[in-house]
Amino acid sequence: MRLLRVGPAGAERPAVLDADDVAHDLTPLTADIDGAFLAGGGVDRVRQALADGLLPVVDLAGQRVGAPVARPGKVVCVGLNYADHAAETGTPPPAEPVVFLKAVNTVVGPDDAVLVPRGSVKTDYEVELAVVIGRTARYLDSQADADGVIAGYAIADDVTERAFQHERGGTWDKGKSCETFNPLGPWLVTPDDVGDPQDLAMRLWVNGEPRQDGHTKNMIFGVRHVVWYLSQFMVLEPGDVVNTGTPAGVAFGANDFPYLRAGDVVEAEIDGLGRQRHVLGQA
Amino acid sequence: MRLLRVGPAGAERPAVLDADDVAHDLTPLTADIDGAFLAGGGVDRVRQALADGLLPVVDLAGQRVGAPVARPGKVVCVGLNYADHAAETGTPPPAEPVVFLKAVNTVVGPDDAVLVPRGSVKTDYEVELAVVIGRTARYLDSQADADGVIAGYAIADDVTERAFQHERGGTWDKGKSCETFNPLGPWLVTPDDVGDPQDLAMRLWVNGEPRQDGHTKNMIFGVRHVVWYLSQFMVLEPGDVVNTGTPAGVAFGANDFPYLRAGDVVEAEIDGLGRQRHVLGQA
Repeated sequence: MRLLRVGPAGAERPAVLDADDVAHDLTPLTADIDGAFLAGGGVDRVRQALADGLLPVVDLAGQRVGAPVARPGKVVCVGLNYADHAAETGTPPPAEPVVFLKAVNTVVGPDDAVLVPRGSVKTDYEVELAVVIGRTARYLDSQADADGVIAGYAIADDVTERAFQHERGGTWDKGKSCETFNPLGPWLVTPDDVGDPQDLAMRLWVNGEPRQDGHTKNMIFGVRHVVWYLSQFMVLEPGDVVNTGTPAGVAFGANDFPYLRAGDVVEAEIDGLGRQRHVLGQA
Repeated sequence: MRLLRVGPAGAERPAVLDADDVAHDLTPLTADIDGAFLAGGGVDRVRQALADGLLPVVDLAGQRVGAPVARPGKVVCVGLNYADHAAETGTPPPAEPVVFLKAVNTVVGPDDAVLVPRGSVKTDYEVELAVVIGRTARYLDSQADADGVIAGYAIADDVTERAFQHERGGTWDKGKSCETFNPLGPWLVTPDDVGDPQDLAMRLWVNGEPRQDGHTKNMIFGVRHVVWYLSQFMVLEPGDVVNTGTPAGVAFGANDFPYLRAGDVVEAEIDGLGRQRHVLGQA
């Protein structure tokens, strides 16, 4: 099942796409897709209501698509989680997951403008498989327990300012938290529709030119490992988002790819999770 | 003016202490002290209602005190911001503010239990002046503009697991985001009652023994500088919390002070901002 939120920023309405790509209004069931909805069995209720024909068909044409989950409590990220990306940045593969946080007000819709920060010359893209948490995860006993806390998956672009990240002192967070730096969506896709999260191809283009062409099978720490691991250090809550790392092909590192500038067009897709297209602007 | 939230975790009610230390119920004015309340001129309305005698006296005896602001959108922290603390950790004073984030679900009441994480042997304390944001701050033009976006101040204990922070790879966030790791309060004190935020003494004790004895005049980057600086990298929003760094005396570094264990009692105070007392437990 594919859940989404459509409408003006801050006033999105929830919807669901059925197996025939027909959109149905979710407002008879819930005012929003958020942590409380996910934790309260909302996805099962949607499935039942769809099967019972209780959700009116709605025309989404021309409407903005928002992030598929209302503002998360946190956005946790795993860095250097693909061997090819670690190599291109000149970093050895990490012995355990590298963790950082993004400010949650970086989350925008998949096709919203992404703003190059003032003073930035190294704004970079990172297509990533995002995990949306559906149940509280605290000290999970095993990686297998991760399945029970995952509500679904989405595409994230973990936009990063490399000079802020690496050349301004302190942690990476300074280059990760600029406004609009986390386009998310278009959909929250439930695990049954995604299949094996370690069997998804992912691609990103800038101005139509291929930049990233990766596959989740190349994650150093897979989705289950990451969710289990994070739960040993912090409490993951329903609605939280976990960005699981980016494959090779970013501008930073060994490539000759240019950094992003206003006017550039970024497109990103992951098998089964749809496609993002955002145009760069200037803050 | 001193604003606070009292009652069971997750069901706190807002209150205000008047100049005579008498508590008044705030629920006639607002359901909670949160970003919307602060951004909407809530503090001015409280002041007027107090002056007009419209807020009923309430007895808070025996009630739990929560964090003085409902869950923030983000908790941003400045590291190594006191020269004496940077020195004790063997780190040169930073050229510009060191920034990291804490998961927002670390925020608990000032006297709530703080849990030593499973597997932790280096849980540490850090008394800090916390700034609560009252208006959106995005690319502030100057440090003087920071005054207009600050709702007030509170005490924070930026609890930290040093092995998770420094010995497990990646950024500091892994050792900063464990559950209960940010006791906040007891009060949100408005700037007029705080006076000069760079003229506050701060102290912390463990089991009654003095550990930290610092002063905000020794910040490397003062409050105005920090808020202005952060606004160049991220959008600060009403209700956000900024921890501005800790002075010398933590267990990590040059001291012989032991790390925290279950049963230890931490007390912290800052001039005019009240006092915290939390007992360590085991996660």
